[in-house]
Amino acid sequence: MANPVLVELTRGSLVESVHRGSVAIVDVEGATRFSLGDIDSPVYPRSSLKPIQALPLAESGAIEAFGLTDEHLALACASHSAEPMHTTRIAAWLQRLGLSGSDLACGPHEVRDEPTRRAMTLRGERPTSIHNNCSGKHTGFLTVARHWDVATNGYEHIDHPVQQAVAAALRELSGVAHLPHGVDGCTAPNFAIPLSGFARALAKLAAPASLAPVRAQAARRIFAAMSAHPELVSGTGRACQILMRASTGRVVVKSGAEGYFAGMVPHLGIGIAIKIDDGSARGSETVIAAILEKLGLIGQDKLAHALARGPVTNTRGAIVGERRPASALGTITL
Amino acid sequence: MANPVLVELTRGSLVESVHRGSVAIVDVEGATRFSLGDIDSPVYPRSSLKPIQALPLAESGAIEAFGLTDEHLALACASHSAEPMHTTRIAAWLQRLGLSGSDLACGPHEVRDEPTRRAMTLRGERPTSIHNNCSGKHTGFLTVARHWDVATNGYEHIDHPVQQAVAAALRELSGVAHLPHGVDGCTAPNFAIPLSGFARALAKLAAPASLAPVRAQAARRIFAAMSAHPELVSGTGRACQILMRASTGRVVVKSGAEGYFAGMVPHLGIGIAIKIDDGSARGSETVIAAILEKLGLIGQDKLAHALARGPVTNTRGAIVGERRPASALGTITL
Repeated sequence: MANPVLVELTRGSLVESVHRGSVAIVDVEGATRFSLGDIDSPVYPRSSLKPIQALPLAESGAIEAFGLTDEHLALACASHSAEPMHTTRIAAWLQRLGLSGSDLACGPHEVRDEPTRRAMTLRGERPTSIHNNCSGKHTGFLTVARHWDVATNGYEHIDHPVQQAVAAALRELSGVAHLPHGVDGCTAPNFAIPLSGFARALAKLAAPASLAPVRAQAARRIFAAMSAHPELVSGTGRACQILMRASTGRVVVKSGAEGYFAGMVPHLGIGIAIKIDDGSARGSETVIAAILEKLGLIGQDKLAHALARGPVTNTRGAIVGERRPASALGTITL
Repeated sequence: MANPVLVELTRGSLVESVHRGSVAIVDVEGATRFSLGDIDSPVYPRSSLKPIQALPLAESGAIEAFGLTDEHLALACASHSAEPMHTTRIAAWLQRLGLSGSDLACGPHEVRDEPTRRAMTLRGERPTSIHNNCSGKHTGFLTVARHWDVATNGYEHIDHPVQQAVAAALRELSGVAHLPHGVDGCTAPNFAIPLSGFARALAKLAAPASLAPVRAQAARRIFAAMSAHPELVSGTGRACQILMRASTGRVVVKSGAEGYFAGMVPHLGIGIAIKIDDGSARGSETVIAAILEKLGLIGQDKLAHALARGPVTNTRGAIVGERRPASALGTITL
């Protein structure tokens, strides 16, 4: 049974391409408030897992011990664009730990931010591990290892205490016991979980009153840090930055590779998990924006509404089609 | 009714993403020799249309009149990477017509070839219309307009004689009378046509014995030009270059935006048309390579087989999953 079409791209009078996928909106009680498609099969949240991967950092006391701030916590939850605002903070953070880029298990990859890439080319610089979009998450893992006084070497292995703490936190928040793992693009473990379970974990992170006090405080701090620093969580002009700014503090969203997107809405007590079957970011960004628009959470922000629905243009800038949510997304009610 | 899954991407023990789509393999008689999914609804072939868009150039006598070669014909069929081998030839070609980049209706876009982009950044150069991947096709249109002594200005409009000639050729080869048009990414008209009809047109182009002599000769010349210059049709390390080289002259393939791919196999008398529903090039490249592999048309070429099936790696280069054709593609027989 194929998942429903969630996004359509038109050209002229025809629909040219579509993105299928699944959506789960779940509350803190674990009740599914809205769903489309398969929400029961395990899927890797990829970088949408980062707010939960940051829980050991936020609840261990490591932040206070190393004199870190909410900016560092936001970077631990980031898929950043490797702009100077990201890389200078992470380099200084590593130095504070007595570590360097060579301690990061993530390899380098091409810098996402175009002006930064251009400036680096002109300076003859090549990307390092610190430019990896996950370098903040990895530095967060290293911070916890330092604080717990366990080996920093091998922190990316599934049996390392930091990764086991992540898995335990995800199990508690989601209520899902069995979490098959794979290796993420950045070498860290990633845990596959049904959309229903992950949306429940996100709801608990958004509205953590039922959690133990230390974990609840850590959850509130992660939400506050991401919400206060959307540009550190993503980058200039990125979907996460635009949507979080537009929500004026009401929503935290986090993208993931291969068409994943996560959302947390404390005042509604819900978590949102989205997976586009084909792995497309064009698809997942349209869906999360359309859902937030439908729930009245992005105000009049033009950039945010343009993520939900926008023109397809050609190289001359002329409008030749439209990217839009499919009819299935029009049915959302909570 | 959803189209079947054609490509799977795994991570760890799970399938993480899939690409659905349609395939039509049709012979010169118009008989469908193999199909998957919907091959009856109109779809834009996008740049896979270029071999047919080059027919007026090849059959008008314009090539001889302007002293052009098969290299120019290959560039007219190209979605090139804007490497110097492409842009220097197109700039000289425009000069030969008494025209320049400002006569091209396509706008500029970012250069695809990474070393070229880097070198241009270092020289402080920005992309021009000649760097547009479709600039060869546009220069081909201009060449025909010059040769026919009709206006070059407005050559990209649907009612211009060059575009009407393209539409007439597509109608004749495909047997499809109704061709809704949209505007392509480069501003040229593109004609929507069922995969079955487009595959038939490709078969006729590949094995043109039944066509009128002038058109048949033009078709053979287009095949020969693309086959002889795969690097001009695409670029260094691109799928079209790899697959055509691997086929040692037996196959011409041409990519199109939004997950389209076209193939022509003269000795089998078949045309191949592929559309990935979600518009993914990762999907369409895997499918065309898997089909050519299954038909025994890419020999032992490692790069070509790697397009059909390959590892998913992380930023450290470790293998974390696999990209592979889905089982539906295992059923191909002609």
